[in-house]
Amino acid sequence: MTPLAAQGAVPGPGIPVALATVRAARARIAPHVHRTPVMTCRSLDEAAGARLYFKCENFQKVGAFKARGAVNAVFSLGDEEARRGVVTHSSGNHGAALAYAAGRRGIPAWIVMPDNAPAIKQANVRGFGGVIRFCAPTVAAREAACAAVQAETGATLVHPYNDWRVIAGQGTAALELLEEVPDLDLVVAPCGGGGLLSGTAIVVKAMQPGVRVFGAEPAGADDACRSLAAGHIVPQDDPRTIADGLRTSLGEKTFAVLSRLADGIGTASEAAIVRAMRTTWERMKIVIEPSSAVPLACLLEGTIPAGGARVGVVLSGGNVDLDHLPWQA
Amino acid sequence: MTPLAAQGAVPGPGIPVALATVRAARARIAPHVHRTPVMTCRSLDEAAGARLYFKCENFQKVGAFKARGAVNAVFSLGDEEARRGVVTHSSGNHGAALAYAAGRRGIPAWIVMPDNAPAIKQANVRGFGGVIRFCAPTVAAREAACAAVQAETGATLVHPYNDWRVIAGQGTAALELLEEVPDLDLVVAPCGGGGLLSGTAIVVKAMQPGVRVFGAEPAGADDACRSLAAGHIVPQDDPRTIADGLRTSLGEKTFAVLSRLADGIGTASEAAIVRAMRTTWERMKIVIEPSSAVPLACLLEGTIPAGGARVGVVLSGGNVDLDHLPWQA
Repeated sequence: MTPLAAQGAVPGPGIPVALATVRAARARIAPHVHRTPVMTCRSLDEAAGARLYFKCENFQKVGAFKARGAVNAVFSLGDEEARRGVVTHSSGNHGAALAYAAGRRGIPAWIVMPDNAPAIKQANVRGFGGVIRFCAPTVAAREAACAAVQAETGATLVHPYNDWRVIAGQGTAALELLEEVPDLDLVVAPCGGGGLLSGTAIVVKAMQPGVRVFGAEPAGADDACRSLAAGHIVPQDDPRTIADGLRTSLGEKTFAVLSRLADGIGTASEAAIVRAMRTTWERMKIVIEPSSAVPLACLLEGTIPAGGARVGVVLSGGNVDLDHLPWQA
Repeated sequence: MTPLAAQGAVPGPGIPVALATVRAARARIAPHVHRTPVMTCRSLDEAAGARLYFKCENFQKVGAFKARGAVNAVFSLGDEEARRGVVTHSSGNHGAALAYAAGRRGIPAWIVMPDNAPAIKQANVRGFGGVIRFCAPTVAAREAACAAVQAETGATLVHPYNDWRVIAGQGTAALELLEEVPDLDLVVAPCGGGGLLSGTAIVVKAMQPGVRVFGAEPAGADDACRSLAAGHIVPQDDPRTIADGLRTSLGEKTFAVLSRLADGIGTASEAAIVRAMRTTWERMKIVIEPSSAVPLACLLEGTIPAGGARVGVVLSGGNVDLDHLPWQA
């Protein structure tokens, strides 16, 4: 099943992450993350007209796949480098994941956040031992704040997705999925900045080149779809989607991987995302966040062709504000 | 681990369900129900000061453990008897489960429901192929409607809990739990009519007599607690709880089992039930119904002593109206 030649070979020029890199990442992160279960659901299969295998990263540490990449990055650092800590700008799952990873290694993590970030996200980062640095809610202020922390502390920047260590870590979810369900036809992962999808594509194309890999995006934040069509990065202006994990644009690293390895990107309407999320809660009895519902929404809307196929679906996370659910007014 | 003598021996006079009966039930129902996973959660362990092993019957067919008892009852019938169908009165999970079980055997199921039953519960029963017979919302009308269906069709009544076949079926969840986690100190299951708790107690006390078995009830529907204290059935008048699966009273069969085998019944306040339900959604990322949260609520309120123990918790089901969550006004 695994073409031996592919294990050490990188997928293309300038892409240093091969299957072997992801296997090494898996060994490195194993003591700190869960091997999440793969779940199935007869009634969702019927709705999609396909056989769906859900990789449940909503059950992952910190409630999202982001723990994989963050732990891999933090535990890839040399002791000297690590001692000075890590820094990132993310008020979402990556910020919490980096705080968690740093805590496991016993090093400091600074998380730069806009000063209007919801209290619940601040509490989450602090709960994992992260130190918050507030900034104005602009890209320039965020980057300046990160640079200031780096200058002051010598901390290493761990970007949420445009980082090879992070990409290799995210690929470990697909590695587990393919080991558990070896005869898939198609694998679908949500695509925001593209870290999860890049890691997934590297693993799937190395282990089983004939298996298709699709990204899934909200139609209201479809920069990956437009970037791959244009052949260069088209940044996302003014994203409009409840899938808060998918509002970011591709980086040059993830663009390089996806333009070489992805078979396509499906897009989903907001209504379909909400419906898919609710249906997953009702039928599978699991809590997933809106970003996790986008692959199923694409399958149900038919923007990713899957008729009769055996489809691996990465459920990226389960962090939701239970006081404000998207199907409620 | 399994005292051989106990396998065939019934737990007491007038109680025809032994461990062997439950093992036979498990073989009978295996093709029609899921073997559900056991999940753990570090942060709930910390909150409870114990090590918790959750048997996830929210992932069961029809979304609740009730599928086990209903399937066992339906597949215990002789062919002639089965051909005439089954009938019950339950607008909740047992009604849906009996419709499901009958559908698997290809026989009719009549489900008697009050004419004010929510549309969603009606749709659920019909979705599994059950035929609804409406009645006025009183006990007398319900029993009369059941009797009328029996007289008319020859259908067999399958009571939601006061039925040995149902009790044996519900016991299969504990059988799986003890096989998977063999060194528990305590097992806690919700207690409404007592079918699940009776099956659980029979299995646990036969396999590991030293393991304690507790029921968990809402303080607003604590008839089992009061019945066991009084030494006779004290019916529940005017139950006040959001745990809609736990408003019923013990029957004479479940009272006989529990007064012999249960070590105690804990009770939980409504506030604790809502908090435990929400915490489970947030931390475990799974959807459970209010009744499922009552054991954890009792552990958190300390009405079931569990300090430092290894505790099996049966999560009974996951059927919730997502438009009306109990923590929302």
